[in-house]
Amino acid sequence: MNFVTDTDNSIKKRWTKRHLLGLEYLSADEITMILDQAAEFKRLAAQGETKLGLLRGTVVANLFFEPSTRTRTSFGLAAKRLSADIVEFSAAGSSLVKGETFIDTARNIEAMGVDQVVVRHSTPGAPHLLAQNLNTSVLNAGDGTHEHPTQALLDIFTIREHRGTLQGLTVALVGDISHSRVARSNIWGLTKLGARVIVCGPATLIPQHVEKLGVEVATDLDKILPELDCINLLRIQFERQRSGLFPSIAEYAHLFGMNGERLKTAKDDVMILAPGPINRGVEITPDVADGGHSVILDQVTNGLLIRMACLYLLNPKNSP
Amino acid sequence: MNFVTDTDNSIKKRWTKRHLLGLEYLSADEITMILDQAAEFKRLAAQGETKLGLLRGTVVANLFFEPSTRTRTSFGLAAKRLSADIVEFSAAGSSLVKGETFIDTARNIEAMGVDQVVVRHSTPGAPHLLAQNLNTSVLNAGDGTHEHPTQALLDIFTIREHRGTLQGLTVALVGDISHSRVARSNIWGLTKLGARVIVCGPATLIPQHVEKLGVEVATDLDKILPELDCINLLRIQFERQRSGLFPSIAEYAHLFGMNGERLKTAKDDVMILAPGPINRGVEITPDVADGGHSVILDQVTNGLLIRMACLYLLNPKNSP
Amino acid sequence: MNFVTDTDNSIKKRWTKRHLLGLEYLSADEITMILDQAAEFKRLAAQGETKLGLLRGTVVANLFFEPSTRTRTSFGLAAKRLSADIVEFSAAGSSLVKGETFIDTARNIEAMGVDQVVVRHSTPGAPHLLAQNLNTSVLNAGDGTHEHPTQALLDIFTIREHRGTLQGLTVALVGDISHSRVARSNIWGLTKLGARVIVCGPATLIPQHVEKLGVEVATDLDKILPELDCINLLRIQFERQRSGLFPSIAEYAHLFGMNGERLKTAKDDVMILAPGPINRGVEITPDVADGGHSVILDQVTNGLLIRMACLYLLNPKNSP
Repeated sequence: MNFVTDTDNSIKKRWTKRHLLGLEYLSADEITMILDQAAEFKRLAAQGETKLGLLRGTVVANLFFEPSTRTRTSFGLAAKRLSADIVEFSAAGSSLVKGETFIDTARNIEAMGVDQVVVRHSTPGAPHLLAQNLNTSVLNAGDGTHEHPTQALLDIFTIREHRGTLQGLTVALVGDISHSRVARSNIWGLTKLGARVIVCGPATLIPQHVEKLGVEVATDLDKILPELDCINLLRIQFERQRSGLFPSIAEYAHLFGMNGERLKTAKDDVMILAPGPINRGVEITPDVADGGHSVILDQVTNGLLIRMACLYLLNPKNSP
Repeated sequence: MNFVTDTDNSIKKRWTKRHLLGLEYLSADEITMILDQAAEFKRLAAQGETKLGLLRGTVVANLFFEPSTRTRTSFGLAAKRLSADIVEFSAAGSSLVKGETFIDTARNIEAMGVDQVVVRHSTPGAPHLLAQNLNTSVLNAGDGTHEHPTQALLDIFTIREHRGTLQGLTVALVGDISHSRVARSNIWGLTKLGARVIVCGPATLIPQHVEKLGVEVATDLDKILPELDCINLLRIQFERQRSGLFPSIAEYAHLFGMNGERLKTAKDDVMILAPGPINRGVEITPDVADGGHSVILDQVTNGLLIRMACLYLLNPKNSP
Repeated sequence: MNFVTDTDNSIKKRWTKRHLLGLEYLSADEITMILDQAAEFKRLAAQGETKLGLLRGTVVANLFFEPSTRTRTSFGLAAKRLSADIVEFSAAGSSLVKGETFIDTARNIEAMGVDQVVVRHSTPGAPHLLAQNLNTSVLNAGDGTHEHPTQALLDIFTIREHRGTLQGLTVALVGDISHSRVARSNIWGLTKLGARVIVCGPATLIPQHVEKLGVEVATDLDKILPELDCINLLRIQFERQRSGLFPSIAEYAHLFGMNGERLKTAKDDVMILAPGPINRGVEITPDVADGGHSVILDQVTNGLLIRMACLYLLNPKNSP
């Protein structure tokens, strides 16, 4: 099986670093290459080809220095579907990891014959540090408030799947923009693919000068709602907020939560996305989460395919 | 390979729900179908065919909301022997799970392409809730004090393996009947297959009206012992007892514990079963646990085969 | 593929017990057989043959009663590379395990069809107890202060790989000899293969009468340094020391820590080994750990191959 829209491997040949550190560092063509590969895996799965031998004999390490069930499971299952072996390493409970020890740990795991390292860490830039110090391919599964590229890729894939293109669509990212690595990765990816992006949330949770990233800013969701093609409801991460600044949960739900009443003022074909796990009744009410506009479970399904695509395209043994 | 005693798939076609929620809901024919399939897997293993490709490309999720090593390991290994991929999800340490969140969690895992969900939960009926809300096959690995169907199936399989049939055998379930999901599943399965069942334990630990399930009640083990073909010594689960009602451990061991002395009054070919992990010196003394009447380790071996049979027969991709 | 230097299986036929309990119990020929098999696996991996079907259909259980990431991961990955299925069992958090219960646990896991048990336990002799009570092959992954045979095998393999032979080399084991299972296994293995072994550390941390094992004793590292071909820097395990006897960390680093200055007085081709995880700045400074004499990461890579060799050679289904 070959990558479908890059027959002469011109894009792939340029993609020499073999890391997925963030969507900031990818071109529109490279992002499209990943989306197309995921679509190819989805097509194969629909034909019953759910177990592929493409990465047989390679080893993927899941290095999670922050707790995670969903992303870890999704990467693990993606690796299994490609017949790779998996090494699981968890340090969620350990104290703050020193730079040196963190690299020692990763180098030791690499020395066991690992070909690709999937890393989640609370420190922004931790995956870059690994990429500089390891010979393996490094995939960022979330680094602090910096980037979470596979989440943005699956969001974008899900939109493209329904609309055919990102070009010309208006997408709102709603919630705590300042602390969201999902927002940051989405901003890079969506703008590169030609979408109009509006970040929307309480003024205290929108970073200064965010307009420089090519997005618009709104603090009144109801005002922009009629223009939106897609709404990505970020998870309110209570643990990240500083107490005094943030609106109360009730206030947030009132102003930015998506509910059936508010949804009536949106376009008929508006898409509701959420990276999950969702706080029902806060960012989103159950009727909307389970309603016809929601693509939340599609996102989970597509996450597996996006991670398969990234592992496959970045695997050092899968050279062009 | 095909199911051996149902060549026209007539039983299997009727078994349309594709869930294993409890033995209460299975017919004698359906139970026998599972036992026969497990016997077929045992025959294959004896020939060295321990790795089968039957569920290649399918995904089994182990969702354990209560701690478990043995049942989880047994299901996991059964899935591996059939070449399925496995997703492990553990929430043993988390607080009481709300219905909605529980279903959200399961739906998210299902959306990753899971074909079968194995669930253990402290709330009776939790697997039924999943079966109503998921599209996958759901297998109950123990729900509160309600049912633990694969444990009863392996108990019954082990008896049938030694005696050829359940018909006409007298089987005692000894211990805390009120709080035992193992007892409840055994009662359904044994009576359906024609065994005479006696529940035996302290009067405080036998549910009222249990006779309506077609069993006899005894509070004096020594009195019924000479009639018994099989004795299933339930585990005393100290954590479930309310302090005042229960006999002391010493009293329990004296009245209901199986030891060499007591065993002399039983039939020469009496079978001793225990679901384990056993409390040596409480339900059973070491000489009996390791003696010639004990089939405790056979039960563990057969548990793997029963779980292989259930996963195989219920897998949605294995349609008749 | 066949074992390369034992074409008539004469050594292997004698190796009837099928356990790896310690290097104390192996002959030089048996040790060499393992090293040669590991070398064969390394040659195959270099050719891209990283996934071998040799143990397909067999089951390896990882029974770790002490915390471990590296050894457990290495054994697990070794089993996967040979296509075995793996059962993971961890009791790191549990209280002191009683002999009887420990054996019950192992027997239960064995009854699930396990062919090989890898065990780590804080009690010296625990693997021997299992070997007496189980029918499976037992591999010691570290038992208290007794032995850690695969660690010594990978150390020896790494030396042989660089020097061709152990015969005539002078190897120092530096650190807390009294409490080190790594030291003990290295002493057995190195002396059997003809190396001259010097144990070196604070006098309080060298066992009395250790000379009877065929080694020399030194308390002044600087004095012996110019004679050494290989230096194995044992990890200082702070948790094992009794407070009063031990030098302070600073004293230890000063007297026995390897640093660039000290290294200048060693032979030009001296090899620096360390079983890891290393305490940078204590046993070893970063410049030495990452320098040209260090083979620390080679050791990790070779550990995987040694464990593959042990699992393969000891597997009951791989009979000569």
